[in-house]
Parts: sequence; C-alpha cells; structure tokens
Amino acid sequence: MAEWKNLDTLTSFDNLQKVQKVNLKEAMSGENGAERVKKYSIPMAGGLSFNYASKQVDEDVLEALAKLAEEAELVKKFEALYNGEIINTGENRLVLHHMTRGQLGNPVEADGVDKRTFYVTQQEKIADFANKVHNGEITNAAGEKFTTVVQIGIGGSDLGPRAMYLSLENWAKKNNAFKMEAKFISNVDPDDAAAVLNSIDVSHSIFVLVSKSGTTLETLTNESFVKDALKKAGLDPSKHMIAVTSETSPLAKSDDYLAAFFMDDYIGGRFSSTSSVGGAVLSLAFGPEVFAQFLEGAAEEDRLSKNENILENPEMMDALIGVYERNVLGYPCTAVLPYSQALSRFPAHLQQLDMESNGKSVNRFGEPVNYQTGPVIFGEPGTNGQHSFYQLLHQGTDIVPLQFIGFKNNQLGSDVVIQDSTSQQKLCANVAAQIVAFACGKSDDNRNKNFEGSRPSSIIVGEQLTPKSLGALLAHFENKIMFQGFVWNVNSFDQEGVQLGKVLAKRVLAHDTEGALKEYSDLLNI
Amino acid sequence: MAEWKNLDTLTSFDNLQKVQKVNLKEAMSGENGAERVKKYSIPMAGGLSFNYASKQVDEDVLEALAKLAEEAELVKKFEALYNGEIINTGENRLVLHHMTRGQLGNPVEADGVDKRTFYVTQQEKIADFANKVHNGEITNAAGEKFTTVVQIGIGGSDLGPRAMYLSLENWAKKNNAFKMEAKFISNVDPDDAAAVLNSIDVSHSIFVLVSKSGTTLETLTNESFVKDALKKAGLDPSKHMIAVTSETSPLAKSDDYLAAFFMDDYIGGRFSSTSSVGGAVLSLAFGPEVFAQFLEGAAEEDRLSKNENILENPEMMDALIGVYERNVLGYPCTAVLPYSQALSRFPAHLQQLDMESNGKSVNRFGEPVNYQTGPVIFGEPGTNGQHSFYQLLHQGTDIVPLQFIGFKNNQLGSDVVIQDSTSQQKLCANVAAQIVAFACGKSDDNRNKNFEGSRPSSIIVGEQLTPKSLGALLAHFENKIMFQGFVWNVNSFDQEGVQLGKVLAKRVLAHDTEGALKEYSDLLNI
Repeated sequence: MAEWKNLDTLTSFDNLQKVQKVNLKEAMSGENGAERVKKYSIPMAGGLSFNYASKQVDEDVLEALAKLAEEAELVKKFEALYNGEIINTGENRLVLHHMTRGQLGNPVEADGVDKRTFYVTQQEKIADFANKVHNGEITNAAGEKFTTVVQIGIGGSDLGPRAMYLSLENWAKKNNAFKMEAKFISNVDPDDAAAVLNSIDVSHSIFVLVSKSGTTLETLTNESFVKDALKKAGLDPSKHMIAVTSETSPLAKSDDYLAAFFMDDYIGGRFSSTSSVGGAVLSLAFGPEVFAQFLEGAAEEDRLSKNENILENPEMMDALIGVYERNVLGYPCTAVLPYSQALSRFPAHLQQLDMESNGKSVNRFGEPVNYQTGPVIFGEPGTNGQHSFYQLLHQGTDIVPLQFIGFKNNQLGSDVVIQDSTSQQKLCANVAAQIVAFACGKSDDNRNKNFEGSRPSSIIVGEQLTPKSLGALLAHFENKIMFQGFVWNVNSFDQEGVQLGKVLAKRVLAHDTEGALKEYSDLLNI
Repeated sequence: MAEWKNLDTLTSFDNLQKVQKVNLKEAMSGENGAERVKKYSIPMAGGLSFNYASKQVDEDVLEALAKLAEEAELVKKFEALYNGEIINTGENRLVLHHMTRGQLGNPVEADGVDKRTFYVTQQEKIADFANKVHNGEITNAAGEKFTTVVQIGIGGSDLGPRAMYLSLENWAKKNNAFKMEAKFISNVDPDDAAAVLNSIDVSHSIFVLVSKSGTTLETLTNESFVKDALKKAGLDPSKHMIAVTSETSPLAKSDDYLAAFFMDDYIGGRFSSTSSVGGAVLSLAFGPEVFAQFLEGAAEEDRLSKNENILENPEMMDALIGVYERNVLGYPCTAVLPYSQALSRFPAHLQQLDMESNGKSVNRFGEPVNYQTGPVIFGEPGTNGQHSFYQLLHQGTDIVPLQFIGFKNNQLGSDVVIQDSTSQQKLCANVAAQIVAFACGKSDDNRNKNFEGSRPSSIIVGEQLTPKSLGALLAHFENKIMFQGFVWNVNSFDQEGVQLGKVLAKRVLAHDTEGALKEYSDLLNI
C-alpha cells in the first residue's frame, strides 16, 4: 500500500529545496544549451516528444526530483488508481478514466460488472449508432440523413469534447473523415442556445444531451430550450435526441431519447473526453474509427506513465518540474501556448482539467495543507499570443512558466511561400525563437529593450496533430495533473468548491435571500 | 506639469500599506454587507454601474486610495495625455485613442493636421464606403452584393475587433442592424486562413487588411494566402480588399485595394478598436450608425474618467483597487468573468490590453522598478467557468481577485421557463450567488466542504449589452489600465517585449542559428 503524505513531510522535498538553483540563461547559452536540447527530451506516444531543455533544471535538480517521485510513490499510487482503489476519497469512488482506453493493470469490477467491458460495450453501442446515422439507417422522421450534431453539456461535458472536436475538424476534412458538423450549447445564458439554434437546420440535427446525474441545471434548461425549438419546427424531440448519462439517472431509460449511452461515477467530468461524453459527439462527427485512434493514442501514453524512471516518463517529469516551479521557485501561474490554431480551445480545457483538479487547500484527508497547490492556467494559440500577452511573459515582473506545443506539419496542407518560407515554417520558426528568447534573453543598455531571460518553458513537439497524437497529448496532461495531485496529497477527483454557488443560486431564485445576497439580487433585477 | 514618480517613492503608498486590512467575510455579512452593496457603487455610461462592495476595502482604505490618486496626479496625467503630451516616451509618441470618440480637452495638432478632424474624417470615409457596400453601389466584379467581411490582422487588429463583433452579433441580428457576417484570420498557422476560406464564399467576400506599419509578417502572409485563393477562384484581389493602415505605409496608396482607411502612430494596436481598425469591420458588419453608438458609449465613459473624485470615477477606483490588490495584498492574477456568452472573447481582448500595457519591469524612464506591475489576466464566460476553474478560485491556495460583468436582459429575447425561472434569471442568480459565495464563504466541519470566503470581486452591471454599453465597458478597462500604468509609473503604450522573438524568428528562417536555437530549429524541422 502506498503511503499518502503531505509534500512538506517528505525528506526528498526538503532536499530539493536545498539544491543549487539553475541559472537558466547561462545553462541555455552556447554549446551547453544545444546539448541540453538534445538530451532533455522524452519520447511520447503518437510521434510526440516532451522536451524540457529550457526548464530550470540540471542533473542535480533532476536527481532530487527523481527522489521525490520515489518517496512520494507516484507510480505505486497510479498503480493503485488503475487497479481500482478508492482514490477519490472525498466521494468514496474509484477513478477509472484510463480504463476507457485500455486496461493498465488488473480487471476492476464495480457495480457488479467488469468495468473495462462496460466501457468497451458503450463504445461499441456508440459506434453502431454512429454508423447507422452515417449510412442512413437512423434518420429524421422524414427519412433524411442528419447533417449536424449538437452537444448540450457544460464543464467537462463541453470543454473537453469541444476542444477535441476543434482539434480534429480540419484534419478530418482533409482526410475524408468528416461526417457531420458539430456545435455546442453550454451556457445557461439563453443567447447561447438561441444563437446555436439560429445557425443550424434543426430538422437535420441530432442533439446529444450530456449529464452524468441527469440533474445539471444548465443542461436541463438548455434541453428544454432545444425541445421547444424542435416542437416549434413541428418536429418530435424524441427523434432528435440521444442521452449520455449514468445508468441510474432519470435520463437513462427515458422514451425522450433515440438512445442512451452510459458513463459512471468513476469518471469525473473533466476526465471524460475519452468516455461516452466525448465518444458520442466525436464518433458522430468523425466516425468511430477516428475516435478509436484517439483512444489508442491516449492508451499508449498511459502506458508510458507507468514507468518508474522519471527520465522515461514524460508525465511524471512534467508533473515534478511543475511542482518544483510552484513550491520551490514560487511561480503562481502556467501558460499553455499551442502553435496550432486547431488547439484554440485546448488551453481552456486544460484550465479546467488542472485548476478544478488541483485547486484545493486541503489534503485527501480533509486537513489544510501548508503549501501552494494547483497554479492558475491560461493560454491562447501562438503566434497570436505573441502579439498580445507575451509582453508580460517576456518583460513583466513575475515569471510565468510556459508550456509550448508545436507540430512540424499543418493539418489542411494548404500553404503559401512568402519571403522564401511557408506559413508553416514561419509558425515553427516562431516557436523555436520564442523558447530561446525566453530562456536566454538579450542584454541591452536601453533597459526598455533589455530581456532578462531565464524564463522557463518546455515544448511538446509532434509530426502532426492527428487523432492519435491528440489522444497522447490529452493523456499527457491528464496524467501530469494526476501525478501533481499525488505529490500535493490532494484529491484531484472531486470538486466541492463548485457547490456553495449552486446552493446560493437556488436561494436567489426562490427569493430566499437577505443581506448582501438580497441586494445583489435586486441589483441584477431577479 | 505632472510629476512622474515611482509608486514606492510616494508617501501615500507608504500610508496605504499601513491601513488596517479589511476582513471581507465579516464586512459582507449581515446588514453591513447589504449597506455596502448599496453604497459602494459608481454610475457608468450606457446604463452600467461599477459595484465594488465585495472588494477588500472600507472607508479607511478608500481614503488612502484617494490620497494615492491625488499624489500620483492621475487625473492630471490623463489630462496631459488627451491634451497631446508625449506620454508614450519609449516611442516618443502622443497617445490619442480617446480622440477617436471625442475631444476631452484642447485641440491636438500633429503631423500638420488637427487629430480629431483626422479621425472623424476616417470615420466618415468608412461610413460612406460601408453604406455603398450595403446599398449595392460597391459590389464584386459581377455586380453582386458582398455578404461577408473578413478581417486579416493580428494582436490588436484582431482581438479587439473580434471581441466587439461577437459582443454585438446577436444584438444586431435582433435589432435589424446585421448587414454582413464577419470572419477573422489572424494566426500565421496556414490552417487558420485555409479553414476560414473554406467556410466562406470568396466571390461575395470583402477582405480588410489591417496593419499599421504595412509590414506585419503574419498579416502580409495571410494576405498572400487570401490573394492566392481569390486568384484561384478567377477573381481580381484588388476588387475584394481594403486596407486599414497608416498614411505612410506601403499599403496606403496601393492599387491593390478598393480603398484605404487610415490610423496613425498615436493609437496602439490594443487601443485601436475605436479607430479605423475596429471601424471598418464593425461598420461593414453592423452599419456605421451602430459603430457611432459604440463610440458614443466610449466617449461618455471617457468623460467620467476625468473626475478627480475617486468615488465618482469608476475607472480610477477600479485601477486603484487593482493596485492595492497587487502591491499591498500581493495577489498576482485577476480573472475576468462576464455572465454573457456574447462576451466570450472579451477576456482575451482584456488579456492583451492589460498584460501588454502593464507587463513591464522598467519605469517610463527605463529604470527598473522594485514592485510588481501588471497582473496575469484570464477569464471565460459564466456560468461555464463555474463548472471549470472556479474550483481553484473558491478553494485554491491563492486568492484571485475577480471582475464580474452581468446584464439584466439578454440580447436575443428568446427564453424559456424551467422550474419557475427563465434562463436569464438563472444566469443572473448565479452571478449574485457567486459574488456572495466568494466573499462570505461558508464554514463546514468537513474541511473539504469548507469555504474560507474573503475572496474579493467587483461587478459591472448593465441593463443590456448594446453598442453603447459595450463602448462604455471597453473604455472603462482601457482607462483603468491607463491609470494603473500611471500609478506604476510605466509606459503602458509601448511593447518592446515582443521584439526579440521577431528578430530570432527571422534568424531561424534565414538558417542563421547556432547553439540551442539551431537545435530547436532542427527539432521543429525548419
């Protein structure tokens, strides 16, 4: 059994703090810098690699991080997780999202079924349904093919699937895998649903209602909004909707849906992109084969996360460097900077994945911790960000660690040569240039044009953003965040912090308010 | 003449640090909290108000902030700015974006012309052009009306205009002001331009090329991309493109464009939404009258920023509370949380506006400062964020000040009643609930369900997001950021931090690299 201990009780953490800090600017200059780029790299699945040459580490720091990984028993804890221990202690639940894409250890039985079988069965049901939609066996009442799929969900039922859809939309169009356009309705702001409904042909649309509990306020409200619109168009909503929910939810056996696909309590919303939550919409949009490739990439990356050697485990390395930056170097934020327009919403998904998992102040036993946990995560695609917030990243008073992502090839294959280089080459040249600019800086007597350098970054590089490399990329961050939760000794799989607001919102709607809450309600005219 | 001094040399800053800190949880509880909500509010233009009841302030803090505003001569510095002093010292330029929407002080002459007249003339030229496009006087070569406008720009030429377009798209559709759909191409990633081009009918599209210098790499590359596509479709690019640029740029007098509209060096990209940069695309999309209302809202808010009384100046108050949070309370980030799906990209625009303006380590004289300057800014619309990163905001180890934005009414007017309330009521109930949840928290013996509270926020509340209120909202943040730059004594109007990356990227493309830069270039296959 792994021992769950607070970070500040570990001898290896104490030692880590004493290791000489690296002067990154110096380390990355000259031939030493070139050597680091070659050496500080770990292969990942899907043709990716994790390169941490421009992080503030050296052999001594890496050795101390390896000892921390060992003392914190990170791999053993991961093993406990995928073998079905109750890792989500707060909610007394197993944590099984890895099992949607493979089986890393022993069979796990829960609720009387083998869970791997359960998830695979759902995938097969979805594949069958999607194929029937695509080949015209399942149609609207007029016998016409559906052309659009609309996901209705919020949080993990929205951000992950939406980011994955956008990541693969152009790839699918280029590779004859584009089956249906997907749209997303999430916000309880009625303008969100109304605008999406105005932009589609509802008579040829199929709606995926996603709510694990079947009680999410925003999602049920938006479902009613959509049903209203369908009825007004003279359509039968039950012929246009499917549900993704848990088997015990009120939606599971309802006649209101063409079909229901299941998830369970062992997969948190933010980790559900590889479950039916992502599976239904992505299989409908791109076909089940594409979704299977996505799962394969994730599965392969998951297996790399089992490696006890930090130098060969990209997720553990990334996690520990992040802990070092947060708890020893004292950096409060991390920016995610994909040099790929297709990843435009990937930072928003990571923002949820990371901040909702590790934005905690108590350990897994409910005791307050005396150290910083999850950082603030934000980001936008490059090169756009270069013309925006990079100013602060380069010359601001705080140091923000950076996570670059880049691909050698674009997805659509259209390009143009200007001034002797393609757009793709310009894109890649910019990411290379930025990493070195951040790390090495540049002295200038005009202090306004001076760059201190020593601003750490890592990069995940790939051949192309494909279903498989996207799966690997997603699993990388999921597992990185899991490992960080282990190090901080927090429960990364609950989210009690979202509850109080829900309770108070209900009181506002019931006009059961007083004091400031009443005044704010009046201010907003409720 | 105003005196430009570093924050840490001001007596009032010294005194501010000594003022007793407010226990926000206590202050916001009971009737005292209700009183604060009523009292701590400042009217804004466009029917908005700035409410700071849930900020960590009280009468003593406010008095100290007022003294800081006075000693830092904020209003006097604003006066110097709009009267045409060289406030952008680094680039030796005036700062005149306010003049695109009104004249706050004396006439300002530069480059031999009266600048207010110059900006108004450009607006009139754009209005005339847009009207001719709308009424069919200006058409494509086949004599058919243009239906789509595509902005090609990056940074300030993209984020602001795009955020403003999305903010008003639904409002315009509802109010018969929707003239043309707008799209945006920004990233040098060739998949960005290719995807936009695939989604439109180029033969009925008009492209707005936006580059002040006429030399922005991404924008010129994307222009070539678009010209290629037009030629391949058998079209004459010069009949489908207009330019927004400075009078001295190579684009200004070129036959490659149907028309050219001008901006100048006195308006930074991130402050250019109210100039021709926003004016061309927004006037084409919604008509010049809508753009004029937007300017009117901004102009009215600008006038409020002239008020020396901090209690009546929403921008100065917001700015000073932000400085207090950053430099006295030590909070490193700020989240922007609009409860309006239409404002989905407003946080990304503010991210640039704020981080590019005040992410500096040297003062306006090029001397290093010894205090923190601009914070990291991030955000997503509510209620979506509630199901995502709010976990960390409620229960994380760092305190993140929050900027809520909410409207009593939605834009499209479609709504649905579920469980006795509309979606709009649910949306507003949630923002009221969140503010109180953050401020007051809730004790629970189960520490995992415990909310410490005392997490500060303010809210800007309005009747509806309209052109006028949007203008006021934009001007609020522009002026807030300007005042903060004055307090920190930095030059908020240059961006030297973006230069080094450009230089290195050119070297990569010229294969003039060595050391780490060469290795990264190889890694990315350039």
